[in-house]
Amino acid sequence: MTAIDTSHAQPVGDADCPLHWFDADRGAFEDLERRIAEHPADFFASQDFDPVGACATREAQFASVELPEDPTAPQAHADHLLNDVFRHVMPVAAPTFVGHMTSSLPSFMPSLAKIVAALNQNVVKLETSGTLTGLERQVIGMLHKLVFGQDNTFYARWLHDAEHSLGAFCSGGTTANLSALWASRNHALRARDGFAGINGAGLVAALRHYGYDGLAIVVSERGHYSLRKAADILGIGRDNLVPVGVDADGRMRVDLLRQTIQDLQQRNIRTMAIVGIAGTTETGAVDLLDAIADVAQEFDCHFHVDAAWGGATLLSERERWRFAGIERADSVVIDAHKQFYVPMGAGMVLFRDPARTQDIIQHANYIVRKGSVDLGRHTLEGSRGAAAVMLYANLHLLGRKGLARLIDTGIDNARYFADLIERQPDFELDSRPQLCILTYRYVPEPVRAALLSPATPADRRERIQQALDALTIDIQERQRDAGRSFVSRTQLTSSQWDSRAIAVFRVVLANPDTTQAILQGVLEEQRQLALDSAKLAAVMVELER
Amino acid sequence: MTAIDTSHAQPVGDADCPLHWFDADRGAFEDLERRIAEHPADFFASQDFDPVGACATREAQFASVELPEDPTAPQAHADHLLNDVFRHVMPVAAPTFVGHMTSSLPSFMPSLAKIVAALNQNVVKLETSGTLTGLERQVIGMLHKLVFGQDNTFYARWLHDAEHSLGAFCSGGTTANLSALWASRNHALRARDGFAGINGAGLVAALRHYGYDGLAIVVSERGHYSLRKAADILGIGRDNLVPVGVDADGRMRVDLLRQTIQDLQQRNIRTMAIVGIAGTTETGAVDLLDAIADVAQEFDCHFHVDAAWGGATLLSERERWRFAGIERADSVVIDAHKQFYVPMGAGMVLFRDPARTQDIIQHANYIVRKGSVDLGRHTLEGSRGAAAVMLYANLHLLGRKGLARLIDTGIDNARYFADLIERQPDFELDSRPQLCILTYRYVPEPVRAALLSPATPADRRERIQQALDALTIDIQERQRDAGRSFVSRTQLTSSQWDSRAIAVFRVVLANPDTTQAILQGVLEEQRQLALDSAKLAAVMVELER
Repeated sequence: MTAIDTSHAQPVGDADCPLHWFDADRGAFEDLERRIAEHPADFFASQDFDPVGACATREAQFASVELPEDPTAPQAHADHLLNDVFRHVMPVAAPTFVGHMTSSLPSFMPSLAKIVAALNQNVVKLETSGTLTGLERQVIGMLHKLVFGQDNTFYARWLHDAEHSLGAFCSGGTTANLSALWASRNHALRARDGFAGINGAGLVAALRHYGYDGLAIVVSERGHYSLRKAADILGIGRDNLVPVGVDADGRMRVDLLRQTIQDLQQRNIRTMAIVGIAGTTETGAVDLLDAIADVAQEFDCHFHVDAAWGGATLLSERERWRFAGIERADSVVIDAHKQFYVPMGAGMVLFRDPARTQDIIQHANYIVRKGSVDLGRHTLEGSRGAAAVMLYANLHLLGRKGLARLIDTGIDNARYFADLIERQPDFELDSRPQLCILTYRYVPEPVRAALLSPATPADRRERIQQALDALTIDIQERQRDAGRSFVSRTQLTSSQWDSRAIAVFRVVLANPDTTQAILQGVLEEQRQLALDSAKLAAVMVELER
Repeated sequence: MTAIDTSHAQPVGDADCPLHWFDADRGAFEDLERRIAEHPADFFASQDFDPVGACATREAQFASVELPEDPTAPQAHADHLLNDVFRHVMPVAAPTFVGHMTSSLPSFMPSLAKIVAALNQNVVKLETSGTLTGLERQVIGMLHKLVFGQDNTFYARWLHDAEHSLGAFCSGGTTANLSALWASRNHALRARDGFAGINGAGLVAALRHYGYDGLAIVVSERGHYSLRKAADILGIGRDNLVPVGVDADGRMRVDLLRQTIQDLQQRNIRTMAIVGIAGTTETGAVDLLDAIADVAQEFDCHFHVDAAWGGATLLSERERWRFAGIERADSVVIDAHKQFYVPMGAGMVLFRDPARTQDIIQHANYIVRKGSVDLGRHTLEGSRGAAAVMLYANLHLLGRKGLARLIDTGIDNARYFADLIERQPDFELDSRPQLCILTYRYVPEPVRAALLSPATPADRRERIQQALDALTIDIQERQRDAGRSFVSRTQLTSSQWDSRAIAVFRVVLANPDTTQAILQGVLEEQRQLALDSAKLAAVMVELER
């Protein structure tokens, strides 16, 4: 580990203008491009790559808050970035990194990112984006059609209509969910009968006018934490994001949903939106969207679908049946930086009704003027880069069929891994994959037998479960720190264990380079870590007690 | 103009995995990199570059919403992107593009963007970012010190403290302003005396508990439109973003500010935050921050400073006096993608008090767990890319001195241009530059004389002003469409014309490559466009009437 070289070389090039100091000397960064950007998986596989894991934050290295006064030489800084920063990031593109939703990307993608950065367009308005405003509207239209399947007349009428918007690119799923729920809130409490609308008058005046005692958003207990955040930001309050229980497959129970809304009605609380999930962050479960759509229709609620993770599954002819009913949603969120395989920072919100952004539209004199086609009139964010180009390229260069093959491969891999886990006497599958995510844990055979035995008293059963939770966490952390492979973990109510929340390993199989051999290795490594763990001994003590 | 080539070549490379189709054939995109990314200004200056301007949206080209079924050959798609998309973006890096806040970038920046895309880290949590979590905290700390100037003990204590955050990178100034005001709202209505806090209970319950009839945010009438958006999203209502008048230099009148807050108090409306601007989007005016800080202290309000545009001026020893008092703010927003010269998508929010994010903190079982150092616990956004690396590189490779020189150059250019305008008999300077932004318009000498003459009746004066507004808009649009140079426009209350809102040209001189000759050419082109304009004839008719 070298410290940063602070020897300050003379700037090169036109010394009068700092932007041009490096024009004549790009070698250092071109070399970095070659080492890293051309084959990230090779970079991550190389001997000198050393992921930090979650336990080592290298705080000491990043402790100084002094601004560098003088310029650093390009080669010195490039060396520093390589040795002290990039060699210690997480290998998210490695096929052994199966813990989170980041994967490998098509190999042309870094080149395209370089071009997009160089052009530095800002799609908030036509005056700083030119063609890219039209291109973004087209990409949003393609996704809109994928989800809602309207006819050509619809798109000919609305796709480029300045006063309307079929959706927007957002920085991520969180801002996309917030955008959808913002539009939903403002639509529920819109201007009428001399009331100016919540957008102008605020939430308190709006509730007073409409005669509600409060607003609620209803979602399954597996909803993403961004929904809680949205409920907070929008002034509704996290406590008014009301969770509904799930069935054995992790899907919202529609009977409980209906009951929840009726209970809220009796308390004079308006259910502003029902959120269906397709699929959940933790297990990839897809809610029964069509049945939820019926309930939303019955109670006249905005129906939002959080498909940030699963939305790309619509590309697969084999798998899209799971999403039946999504076309009845009022809004849908899909992240392009997940299973559309573009780099970070590309969420999308889609609105079935092109008029749904009318209650969030805004203007300014110097930008996004009334009547302009500027995208910024319809978006939560203001200035934004041209992330749509990346998705546009993937849609063309891979085609629907290529992308669908990636989706199918991930699901096949998840099914293979689930079967493999079920064949192990000492592993326990917690959620069967609907998409390419699954959860499981390590449980020695006699421990499992004791847990299942009616003879085991409840308090002992609970102590065993607690010891197993500690074991799962210990295995996950030591596997992460060893750096050979990475599996995440979460805590989930388990239908096979009386809805107790148990700690489980969580695997996301979005990288098509993840082989069966790698998955076998992951289990083998976990078994070895378990056998070496003091936490396993603690489990056995509880068993014998 | 060629249509996209839909001939579907055979995928190359490992045909089994779409992510690898292009591994062996990167030539097409490498060629695009060479043509565009290595010298964007040369690309924009080339003969076949053809910016669309705001009037031509090429909707016909982006009309299809059909997803491509089969893969397109890389060369065909690269050609399409070059000829039909990239050749018609806006030349934001060109030295003749002086209308908006996008500029040229250091030449190593596209390389770095390529590497960041290839590594595809997600700084929401350590498990997907490794060292970059520590690096982001360091960069935020550097900016925090630049603004608030705390001592080393402070940073040693708080910089890497998991439970606290000195700020965050955001997708842009809009989400950064929203983050600051969210934290401010939640702090004003925080948990106490058995009340759970607004974050859980929502705005209505919080106001009831605190006994206020409403919340307000107070800002000068020159506040950015993102503040109105934030007031809407947060449930406060746009009407409760209360504008305060400005002085002749475009700065909030502090006497009116105090009066506004007192009026709100009498209506039992709590001023949740006062927003100072440094500098305004339209003229670059910097509010009297120290005087505003006094008022915020007097009324116990959160003091937020929107320095999205101007914040980088703090780097300049010569100019930072303008920001005196910013160190007393509770929160400050600065955009790195503006005068820190990094690509789009890098806003920042900074909190003086490390505990200010306590009321917006959140957790989830699979991510951003309690106790973790994960940045995502403290941010409005969830998954985010590693934009901090770009700013980190600029801070080191240009150094404070290099960046300060860019700031000073911009301000020098603005002063030169203001003087040049004042020397023209037929141009009228509307705002003298405090930073590198100024506004002006074309007014023939006899027209100006008539407007100044007490003999001109008020209704004729108004008709002349209306005709001048139409002329300004006409000149701006035709200059934009001609594509040689680009100046933006806005509508501003003018202190020299009895606070009438007049249409003006707006120039942002952030690109150090903009020469005096270019600025002379901009005026000459505008004069010629005026003389050719039917709108000028209409002005003269009003004069003669």
